[in-house]
Amino acid sequence: MSHEQHDAVEVITAKRDGGRLSDSQVDWVVDAYTRGAVADEQMSALAMAILLNGMEREEIARWTAAMIASGERMDFSSLSRPTADKHSTGGVGDKITLPLAPLVAACGVAVPQLSGRGLGHTGGTLDKLESIPGWRAGLSTEAMLRQLEDVGAVICAAGDGLAPADKKLYALRDVTGTVEAIPLIASSIMSKKIAEGTGSLVLDVKVGTGAFMKTPARARELAETMVALGTDAGVTTVALLTEMSTPLGLTAGNAIEVEESVEVLAGGGPADVVELTVALAREMLAAAGRTDVDPADRLADGSAMDCWRAMIGAQGGDPDAALPVARESHVVTAPADGVLTRLDAMAVGTAAWRLGAGRARKEDPVQAGAGVRWHARPGDAVRAGQPLMTLLTDEPARFDRALAALEGGYDVAPAGTAYEPGPLVIDRVG
Amino acid sequence: MSHEQHDAVEVITAKRDGGRLSDSQVDWVVDAYTRGAVADEQMSALAMAILLNGMEREEIARWTAAMIASGERMDFSSLSRPTADKHSTGGVGDKITLPLAPLVAACGVAVPQLSGRGLGHTGGTLDKLESIPGWRAGLSTEAMLRQLEDVGAVICAAGDGLAPADKKLYALRDVTGTVEAIPLIASSIMSKKIAEGTGSLVLDVKVGTGAFMKTPARARELAETMVALGTDAGVTTVALLTEMSTPLGLTAGNAIEVEESVEVLAGGGPADVVELTVALAREMLAAAGRTDVDPADRLADGSAMDCWRAMIGAQGGDPDAALPVARESHVVTAPADGVLTRLDAMAVGTAAWRLGAGRARKEDPVQAGAGVRWHARPGDAVRAGQPLMTLLTDEPARFDRALAALEGGYDVAPAGTAYEPGPLVIDRVG
Repeated sequence: MSHEQHDAVEVITAKRDGGRLSDSQVDWVVDAYTRGAVADEQMSALAMAILLNGMEREEIARWTAAMIASGERMDFSSLSRPTADKHSTGGVGDKITLPLAPLVAACGVAVPQLSGRGLGHTGGTLDKLESIPGWRAGLSTEAMLRQLEDVGAVICAAGDGLAPADKKLYALRDVTGTVEAIPLIASSIMSKKIAEGTGSLVLDVKVGTGAFMKTPARARELAETMVALGTDAGVTTVALLTEMSTPLGLTAGNAIEVEESVEVLAGGGPADVVELTVALAREMLAAAGRTDVDPADRLADGSAMDCWRAMIGAQGGDPDAALPVARESHVVTAPADGVLTRLDAMAVGTAAWRLGAGRARKEDPVQAGAGVRWHARPGDAVRAGQPLMTLLTDEPARFDRALAALEGGYDVAPAGTAYEPGPLVIDRVG
Repeated sequence: MSHEQHDAVEVITAKRDGGRLSDSQVDWVVDAYTRGAVADEQMSALAMAILLNGMEREEIARWTAAMIASGERMDFSSLSRPTADKHSTGGVGDKITLPLAPLVAACGVAVPQLSGRGLGHTGGTLDKLESIPGWRAGLSTEAMLRQLEDVGAVICAAGDGLAPADKKLYALRDVTGTVEAIPLIASSIMSKKIAEGTGSLVLDVKVGTGAFMKTPARARELAETMVALGTDAGVTTVALLTEMSTPLGLTAGNAIEVEESVEVLAGGGPADVVELTVALAREMLAAAGRTDVDPADRLADGSAMDCWRAMIGAQGGDPDAALPVARESHVVTAPADGVLTRLDAMAVGTAAWRLGAGRARKEDPVQAGAGVRWHARPGDAVRAGQPLMTLLTDEPARFDRALAALEGGYDVAPAGTAYEPGPLVIDRVG
């Protein structure tokens, strides 16, 4: 870290006028913002200038390093196995972390997964797991290390000490229209993952209507930026670009996504969830140097399920307990005979959010049982009047706004209409 | 005013993505910001997006109207004479308001001049007048109207009730690198002038190193934007683009600028100050419909000076009192025989500021006697060792940083070098 003195207006105007921030300017502004010497209104002006004028690779790397330096770093080098982590940029029905972490652990690679809660239309891994009676998201660093050694997988909340600059900046971006800046998204994700200390990292960069990145080009730019950041920091990093115009699996919510994850661990579950779980597991194992194990075998032989049960139990959860169920449900039926040709991820995600599965503000609670369950996937034949989706919530007053979100969110075409599914994994960067 | 509901992120992202804000969005965001429902960090992100993506004419007009609507409006229609005001975008040595207001009043047009204090390297009219013993900047609306009727000219501080949205936004822009946005500069100036209720307005838009607008193109854009805003609001508005790469007159400071202004009112003073004062007076008189009087006559016959004395006296000042003098001085001499070919306005303005004539923060006091007096103007022959400038301050510790500001700020070329002065009034818009 440089200790030169700068001032906020100088740094803001440099970026405003299209310049490259010097290392010393980046170090200063991130540190001063964390300390409160740069005010929120100054950082938000800078964030908007970064969003509109961009940052060079080296600037983003320095920014990421400064965010890491704002807090503590974890160290897993004392573990007897290699570590691999996964990060998804956020999708609808994206429960992949739940079966993936125990599956990879069952293959001999430890998974230290520090997760977040949902905000907006995308669900949060911790919200989903908290629907399991007794399960706790908070772990001390010692407990986390012990669980990684004993069980091999841990999914828990990130402590306050990791990249505090990012925590502050993320909350600011959320209210100032500056979430979508690729340099800030990339540095936010990578500062936490690098500070977390994982040996290797696989990024699941979502593309489509239900993702932050709407086009493959933007997703590829984000993926390449993050892979470069990880690689430069000594973390073996790979990214898959995966489809997120259609929601994953057959559920979007909390308890209902846990249920679907358990089906996958039991050897069943929706084909797309299984496909993506195995694809990401292969990447994680390869990144950690374990190409000798096939994760599909570990799903089939039940060892991934054993690891799931141990992982949930180690954090106070009862893997056999009945999951909460929503008090009210409402069925949406197919309007005509034909083929379901489109089910929009954003529409489904927004409906699940409005039903109570997600939160509008960080302080809001979520409903464990709320969400959307769909009974057909694009390509499936449907009959008029057949249940297409079931909306779940504890508060029936929420149905109207959820139904409004689903309006125009799916298409049923005449029977015989050709439907050509695109690939689930669109591209690989790394 | 529309009463539709919006939210800050929606308005910020609309402008961030290059869109035009709707009337209803503009009304809402300005009102919500004034009430505190839109936070500083949200408004600063919006200001940066406006700076980088611009605003259309109609958007700026609506923004200006919303800022006016945030407070009260004054009304001078009960006066027996027409009103005209002048606004300068800020320069170095720009004391023109001081002789101009009484000169125009002496010609039969009332001048309601609500002025500000200096910030940064440009001086403030109120700071200058406050160097006159007893003079008060604060006046009630009734006292202002009475003085306009009795004396014809008033220079005073704007009350808190006028365009409070602008007051809040101006302070925010100052610390967030968003001062330079033309839509925000134009709406800031024009909202105050329109709310002030003047019948006509002449804008002195400065161009050059010592001005906010460094190029004629930027200055013309600002001038055209402001003239359109004024005209649309029913205020006869004209702008002059005037030279500000060289400071005006022979002084930059507070008391020393008052002294120079009195010389002009007495029929003397530096030629450029006289020329600009008379040019602006002619524009103000024409805009107010009084083309029958020549302001040069009123300077010559002493009636402008009489009006100055009455104006100062009406606000508690003693026009005959000795002005404060700086305790310390330091002379800068010419390095060689030759011709002074350049004297940089920004260098001189920064030196005067550092000597104590200006303030770094709104709360700072200014020194009445501090400033810079220069003894040659570009085009003048100089002799090695001859005094070029005198630096004035109460605190000799300030000389070093003032001298640093002047380094490279002037050129002395070999005797006989041709010097071709440019015009003082570069262009006219209106």
